[in-house]
Amino acid sequence: MDFVIIGGDAAGMSAASRARRQYPDLRITVLEQSHDVSYSACSMPYNIADPQTPMDTLVVRTAAEFIDKHRIDLRTGHKVTAILRDKRQVSGKTADNEPFCTGYDKLLIATGATPTLPDLPGKELLMPLKQLEHGRQIKQAIKDRRAKNAAIMGMGYIAMEMCEALTALGIHVCMVKPSSRFLPWLPKDMAQIVQEEVSKNGVDLHLGTTVTSIEKKQNRVRLHCDNTTLDADLALGATGVRPCSELAQKTGLALSVSDSISVDSYLRTSDPDIFAAGDCGDAFHVVTGKKTWIPLALRANRAGWAVADNLFSEKTSLQGVAGTAVFKVFDLAVARSGLTLSEAKKAGFDPVENRITSWSRVKWQPGAAKIYVNMVGDKKTGKLLGTQMVGTDGVAHRINAVAVALHAGMSVADFIQTDLAYAPPFSPTWDPLLTAAIQLEKKL
Amino acid sequence: MDFVIIGGDAAGMSAASRARRQYPDLRITVLEQSHDVSYSACSMPYNIADPQTPMDTLVVRTAAEFIDKHRIDLRTGHKVTAILRDKRQVSGKTADNEPFCTGYDKLLIATGATPTLPDLPGKELLMPLKQLEHGRQIKQAIKDRRAKNAAIMGMGYIAMEMCEALTALGIHVCMVKPSSRFLPWLPKDMAQIVQEEVSKNGVDLHLGTTVTSIEKKQNRVRLHCDNTTLDADLALGATGVRPCSELAQKTGLALSVSDSISVDSYLRTSDPDIFAAGDCGDAFHVVTGKKTWIPLALRANRAGWAVADNLFSEKTSLQGVAGTAVFKVFDLAVARSGLTLSEAKKAGFDPVENRITSWSRVKWQPGAAKIYVNMVGDKKTGKLLGTQMVGTDGVAHRINAVAVALHAGMSVADFIQTDLAYAPPFSPTWDPLLTAAIQLEKKL
Repeated sequence: MDFVIIGGDAAGMSAASRARRQYPDLRITVLEQSHDVSYSACSMPYNIADPQTPMDTLVVRTAAEFIDKHRIDLRTGHKVTAILRDKRQVSGKTADNEPFCTGYDKLLIATGATPTLPDLPGKELLMPLKQLEHGRQIKQAIKDRRAKNAAIMGMGYIAMEMCEALTALGIHVCMVKPSSRFLPWLPKDMAQIVQEEVSKNGVDLHLGTTVTSIEKKQNRVRLHCDNTTLDADLALGATGVRPCSELAQKTGLALSVSDSISVDSYLRTSDPDIFAAGDCGDAFHVVTGKKTWIPLALRANRAGWAVADNLFSEKTSLQGVAGTAVFKVFDLAVARSGLTLSEAKKAGFDPVENRITSWSRVKWQPGAAKIYVNMVGDKKTGKLLGTQMVGTDGVAHRINAVAVALHAGMSVADFIQTDLAYAPPFSPTWDPLLTAAIQLEKKL
Repeated sequence: MDFVIIGGDAAGMSAASRARRQYPDLRITVLEQSHDVSYSACSMPYNIADPQTPMDTLVVRTAAEFIDKHRIDLRTGHKVTAILRDKRQVSGKTADNEPFCTGYDKLLIATGATPTLPDLPGKELLMPLKQLEHGRQIKQAIKDRRAKNAAIMGMGYIAMEMCEALTALGIHVCMVKPSSRFLPWLPKDMAQIVQEEVSKNGVDLHLGTTVTSIEKKQNRVRLHCDNTTLDADLALGATGVRPCSELAQKTGLALSVSDSISVDSYLRTSDPDIFAAGDCGDAFHVVTGKKTWIPLALRANRAGWAVADNLFSEKTSLQGVAGTAVFKVFDLAVARSGLTLSEAKKAGFDPVENRITSWSRVKWQPGAAKIYVNMVGDKKTGKLLGTQMVGTDGVAHRINAVAVALHAGMSVADFIQTDLAYAPPFSPTWDPLLTAAIQLEKKL
């Protein structure tokens, strides 16, 4: 039996490793277009901030290790260009332009996501950050150009992490985006806190600014905008990603939200012998019960594992995602789980939100800081729908209590009852999450 | 209508304040034997560590504030000695030895818990730490005696917090307890980590040592033990607490676990006009569904509120406690929620536990540290039963995800599915809790 995997990143290699443990006799082939597998993509901004540590320390396991130790036929530099479902084959070309063709009994599409760079003159001058090679290129460019200024298009998670990383290197950063709303999924006053933190650290934010073209100026770049001109040693493109679902689409598999590949809870596509996992596939949202596309690392790993479990029988059904995410920008952590007010409205709930400010610890404890919690609940059912949090202390792990509650389908009233930990060095008697829930419940 | 509350601490004052908001015309009387109400008892060790800050800064609201602002007839120095249920009265004596007698329509017993000092010659030389007055006395003794050495009987939460507080003052601490097991509710290797942290900070631990008598030596104390003699400037008694349920018992109310006052989920005692809340009352355990007695601050506050809600109709039913607790000792945090293996066995489960060691963050991130997680599950049902954690980083709030899961009655398999937050500065891709659950599930 042949298990073929297209894509050797988190989902693909998780599936390959676990399949090897479960089926010692299975032939497992991984076709990866780049030369990197199994690296910590989310750590790239932190590595870029550290010139002493080579980007390649982010490699968790090398191709050789997969090949020798796990007997996985891992072929890097292999770009799949077609899935021939009638022949149960995939075909493509190697980095040396040699055609190849491989038969499968079970196939996993783990092609990930790709940056969506804006379509404007000079867009090839924008450096994305998705693959390890991108990280290497940015790091090299900073060094080669002795960069003192950088421009970042976009103000999402990756953009935030990169503005901190570059600032740590003494590089002045300006950021540009067309919309005037900073972190639009946060309530305005909470977004304002993050915006001030970023500005305070010397980053110039150009909100409501559209880049019209990018021009090369010797070793530098010039961003022509509708209302200004920005010069920089390098320009990063962090304007989001889209699922790499072209192969799936061409072979007639069903697509879903944002053109991600539609999978059931066993990670099967519309062809039961073809699975999809990782950033290219969709997921059920545990709050709405509907399909969503939220490309995040934990889901990719988990989905890869589940594919291995489900290759030959229905073993692991995934409940789905709560959309839990956290990022750090300078001294702040920004976290969310579940739905925002506007997402909840779109999903058909009758939502109401409430924001509180509390202390992260008993207020006279060292390290105690303001923490801002926005909680969203449903008027019709009383259900907890989501939470967003901002603060310098105690944000990242607190959100997990909300994530678990969302998986359990808890009401706000039930969440109020939870016995959360209290000791003065860590929390007020009523954890900020409980205070948020108590205040929200009054509006439900 | 008269609502009378015996005890003006967390539960009593929470009930009084909330009852005032809900029933503007209710006559509310609080009878408190001491002269302190509404203070942060759990902050006392931290205040003792800080000679510059008076103990009275821990007072959240003064008696005058309750009286003037909330129109609560708060009578400090009033010790209730009897509840006369047939007459619906409580009687007692004031600090000036004046008898008093007050009628009630609804009564709340919020008498708290009291330290259980061992019955041995010289026990009056032991200083407990439960009430604010105890805190003042310890602080004064440290100052007056220019304390350089302290002995602590007991090695529980309060003892741990106090050994850190005293060490911070430059006081050498020795601790004594009869059992040879340090933190017996933790798996041995995890208890060992905490024990080493305490020893490393210069605290002498005398495990397996029984104090036989205490003797006054001028301004100092001498602890005669079965295997040693310990001299100290002051001796603290932190050997646990018991519920103050004598009044309830004398008037014939049903008692429960550890002689706590038995209450239903509406906080009613066996007399429907008499409520009990706080450390004197029992609670349902959300994992076992059975009665338990775990005196902690959050429950006391929550139960006080619920009593106010339920005075005249069944409004707020409390689910109960998960036994979530956390304490800090030097650089370590120690947390738990739910049952330990042995508690689970006693409760009739068929439990199995598994301990993992993980990183608190992606391991090359600043602040990343080892984190130790012991998770307990039930073989029969697959249910998550409890978790204990130790580490220097990311322990306190992580336990809350477990607490919520226990309230929701989640299985270990379901917990594995939860979408916990990941970003390298805060967590590995698989949060340590997920890794713990995945490993435990293999044993179920």
